Amino acid sequence: MPRIILSEKLDCSRLADIAAEVNPDKTILLTDSNVAPLLPPALTEGRPVITMPAGEENKNLDGLAAIWRSLISLDATRRSLLINAGGGVVGDIGGFAASTFKRGMPFINVATTLLAAADASIGGKTAIDFYGLKNQIGTFAEPLATFIPTAAWATLPRLQLLSGFGEIVKAAYLLSPQAVKRVIATIDEGLSPRTIRPLLDDALRLKSQIVEEDPFEHGRRAILNLGHTAGHAFESIALRKGADLPHGIAVAYGILLALILSHTSLGLPSAEIYRYVDRILRPLFPPLSPFTCDDYPDIINAMRADKKNPDRATLRFILLRSLGNPAPTSLTPDAIPPALDIFRDLLSL
Amino acid sequence: MPRIILSEKLDCSRLADIAAEVNPDKTILLTDSNVAPLLPPALTEGRPVITMPAGEENKNLDGLAAIWRSLISLDATRRSLLINAGGGVVGDIGGFAASTFKRGMPFINVATTLLAAADASIGGKTAIDFYGLKNQIGTFAEPLATFIPTAAWATLPRLQLLSGFGEIVKAAYLLSPQAVKRVIATIDEGLSPRTIRPLLDDALRLKSQIVEEDPFEHGRRAILNLGHTAGHAFESIALRKGADLPHGIAVAYGILLALILSHTSLGLPSAEIYRYVDRILRPLFPPLSPFTCDDYPDIINAMRADKKNPDRATLRFILLRSLGNPAPTSLTPDAIPPALDIFRDLLSL
Repeated sequence: MPRIILSEKLDCSRLADIAAEVNPDKTILLTDSNVAPLLPPALTEGRPVITMPAGEENKNLDGLAAIWRSLISLDATRRSLLINAGGGVVGDIGGFAASTFKRGMPFINVATTLLAAADASIGGKTAIDFYGLKNQIGTFAEPLATFIPTAAWATLPRLQLLSGFGEIVKAAYLLSPQAVKRVIATIDEGLSPRTIRPLLDDALRLKSQIVEEDPFEHGRRAILNLGHTAGHAFESIALRKGADLPHGIAVAYGILLALILSHTSLGLPSAEIYRYVDRILRPLFPPLSPFTCDDYPDIINAMRADKKNPDRATLRFILLRSLGNPAPTSLTPDAIPPALDIFRDLLSL
Repeated sequence: MPRIILSEKLDCSRLADIAAEVNPDKTILLTDSNVAPLLPPALTEGRPVITMPAGEENKNLDGLAAIWRSLISLDATRRSLLINAGGGVVGDIGGFAASTFKRGMPFINVATTLLAAADASIGGKTAIDFYGLKNQIGTFAEPLATFIPTAAWATLPRLQLLSGFGEIVKAAYLLSPQAVKRVIATIDEGLSPRTIRPLLDDALRLKSQIVEEDPFEHGRRAILNLGHTAGHAFESIALRKGADLPHGIAVAYGILLALILSHTSLGLPSAEIYRYVDRILRPLFPPLSPFTCDDYPDIINAMRADKKNPDRATLRFILLRSLGNPAPTSLTPDAIPPALDIFRDLLSL
């Protein structure tokens, strides 16, 4: 089981204990230009720090090569320890760099964003984007532990907090009708580290249970991709247009498309679609950039590139028979345009 | 246990059987410009082929990115199968590309050189060179199987055959005095696929036994690096000078330095050094490019970059107490110059 250390402030003494387990010859910190000024001195003092430029656009091959070069310059060995302190980008690229440097060095993640905490802290996925495609290159590699200091969420831009909340919403729809109710109640109450933390607990429990059953995503783990087939496509399109669409917000919109397809393909009551738009999407999430039916082929092509598809003629979606009852479903591309029509209607895009 | 299929000609029907086990949606062949014209039609027919330029100098990040791009262009999924047909370069970079493409697709190796058969066919190591350093980046990832068609050795340039034989010699020194005798008898008889094959069998048995005990090189597996600490250093220096020093030949010279250090540090009889030079190195291997004591700091620095060193102040060598009795030994860098003096004396460099 992966170790998750959830606390208000970063538990530096626990971190030192876990680092000591692998008796590293050297500990190196990787962070990004946004997070660097916010890190506690107890974490950075006396340690070499590699600071990468912030942003998903740097989670690529050039950014990766720069990290590998820094590790070489710092005389890192396979017995050195890398601490990745930052959001999903730092965790993804830092984990990939560590898992391939000299065929693998140990690493610890400090997830400073809600998105990294909810999406990336369990499951051992590392990745870079490549050739305009999200997370096309990567490994499965477990950190020694993931630290989640919830106080860091207070420093997040609202958009980033919402991005993390998108993954919390996803977990609720996979869990149960009650979990969805709790999400809606939390939105009504207002998002804060205090109100979000119990929802994160639920999401992490769900995820670790599923990942334990299926670590390499050969089966059941695929349900965690609810909202991701369309979400990744929205992200890829946004990336190409130079727009900034945070991952969890793309997923939140991807869930809407999944609910629409669940209605048309599996008979999920349409009331769930309206509730999702009225109680979750509209009140909380910023509007999606408008697109037209001219964009459909691009969106469908991006869906085709999804790693989970068995082949190019089949799109693999996680749909819901009911709340808490996910059903991996194969669709042909011609199912998508009518669903995108409804999607745009509902959102007045 | 890794599956090794050793036969005179490539066993294409066995290959088809093993490929069928993973039910791939598509099978893609990776090879290089030297090997491509020599592949049997039964292997290539009806399959997309990615042909990389031949040579260690292409086992780098650019070469890797080109393979990833080709896989994307060919619509490869994580359920596609990659067949890496070629020498160590194709196996190393192809294995790394496959193990990281969409977080891992299955692959099969067809080792067409003796070096790839002896050095890379067991152990699941994949790699690229990076920043002028050999195999700095890589993963541990097992092919579904490795095919070794010995007839391919007949098409190898003599230098390539000798490079493979360097690893065979290494295995013999790790195995026993009898194994070393058999190697010398084989050299006296003349190298050919027929005479080499039983020695390769011994080497592969040794290696699979060791790798099974220690798959991630945390302990005993390190003995397989006999000759490699100095050998990699000779390779790195040659690479920087633009000279071509095949891996197994570098290892053969690295074994000489290990024997010298075994004599000075562990009391291995000096007669073993002379026998190695007189019966193996001089009769068989091409001379090493001369170097002077001005080159010692570069050589020692390259030894320092070795992945297996616990830290920068300690050089980790595999030495021999006697033939067949390896002893991992930590040395300080000041042990190296006197040994290099003897090394140059013995070879009249």
